[in-house]
Amino acid sequence: MLVIGLDPGTATTGYGIIEENDRKEIRLVTYGIIATPAGLAAEQRLLAINQQLSELLLLHRPDFGAVEKLFFQKNVTTAIAVGQARGVILLSLAQQSIPLAEYTPNEVKQAVTGYGSADKKQVQEMVRTILQLPAIPKPDDAADALAIALCHLQSRAYQRLESIGGA
Amino acid sequence: MLVIGLDPGTATTGYGIIEENDRKEIRLVTYGIIATPAGLAAEQRLLAINQQLSELLLLHRPDFGAVEKLFFQKNVTTAIAVGQARGVILLSLAQQSIPLAEYTPNEVKQAVTGYGSADKKQVQEMVRTILQLPAIPKPDDAADALAIALCHLQSRAYQRLESIGGA
Repeated sequence: MLVIGLDPGTATTGYGIIEENDRKEIRLVTYGIIATPAGLAAEQRLLAINQQLSELLLLHRPDFGAVEKLFFQKNVTTAIAVGQARGVILLSLAQQSIPLAEYTPNEVKQAVTGYGSADKKQVQEMVRTILQLPAIPKPDDAADALAIALCHLQSRAYQRLESIGGA
Repeated sequence: MLVIGLDPGTATTGYGIIEENDRKEIRLVTYGIIATPAGLAAEQRLLAINQQLSELLLLHRPDFGAVEKLFFQKNVTTAIAVGQARGVILLSLAQQSIPLAEYTPNEVKQAVTGYGSADKKQVQEMVRTILQLPAIPKPDDAADALAIALCHLQSRAYQRLESIGGA
């Protein structure tokens, strides 16, 4: 199963694609950022995000998209700007009928490190360890996107255990 | 010149299309709302907004899109939800290379009624008068969208006067 994690932003949207095989082994497929030039108008940036993300989705055909639920932003202006990028990301997934899963920041921390109050550095270190990478993925937006994708796989694993336990 | 005004929302996006002819006469072309069912997931609502708005743009081929600048929202959660819808609207315009103009709520009030502190009812009444309609357009989101479209025409008229005065 292929999962793409996405960390929305107007200037930089992080993405990370990971795969889990039938033996539940997880491997990194690719990660990176969709960066849009600072001088570009908002609508042109959103167009660039939609085009680049759509190409990425067509190329890799992930089974799931995972995105963080947003609660806190510095202010309403920032919230609207991030919301705009997030809207275009959700749309891009829906345009290719890729199911969406959403997780809170605490759920991501909990799933990746085992506790919900882990700091950013600890999450990144666990991403590196789980994916057996020589170094923490850079930039931060890409590492965050990988953590969200990992959260989705771990949550699914947990749901499987739950359903076995409950059966 | 054909202008589409848009008032973004997840549940309801208002639109209003008006035309100014060579004699600077303004007429209503159409108005309405893009409504998405409450039970639908966020990404499916955004997909519906993109699809319905894209059809509307293909049908009418407006020369400009006008959208309100958003500053204030009840809270960050609302701001993100409205931001998501707004992002999809800006994207839909950009996908068809329709130039975007943005106006603050005060600029809209100022342009339509002549003063920036006009209330909602006064703005709607002026929309009705300018467009020579038998009644105020319903629902409110559609009337708001028409006000934004009118603001764009008035601002352009003002810019023309400015450039004549300055020449």
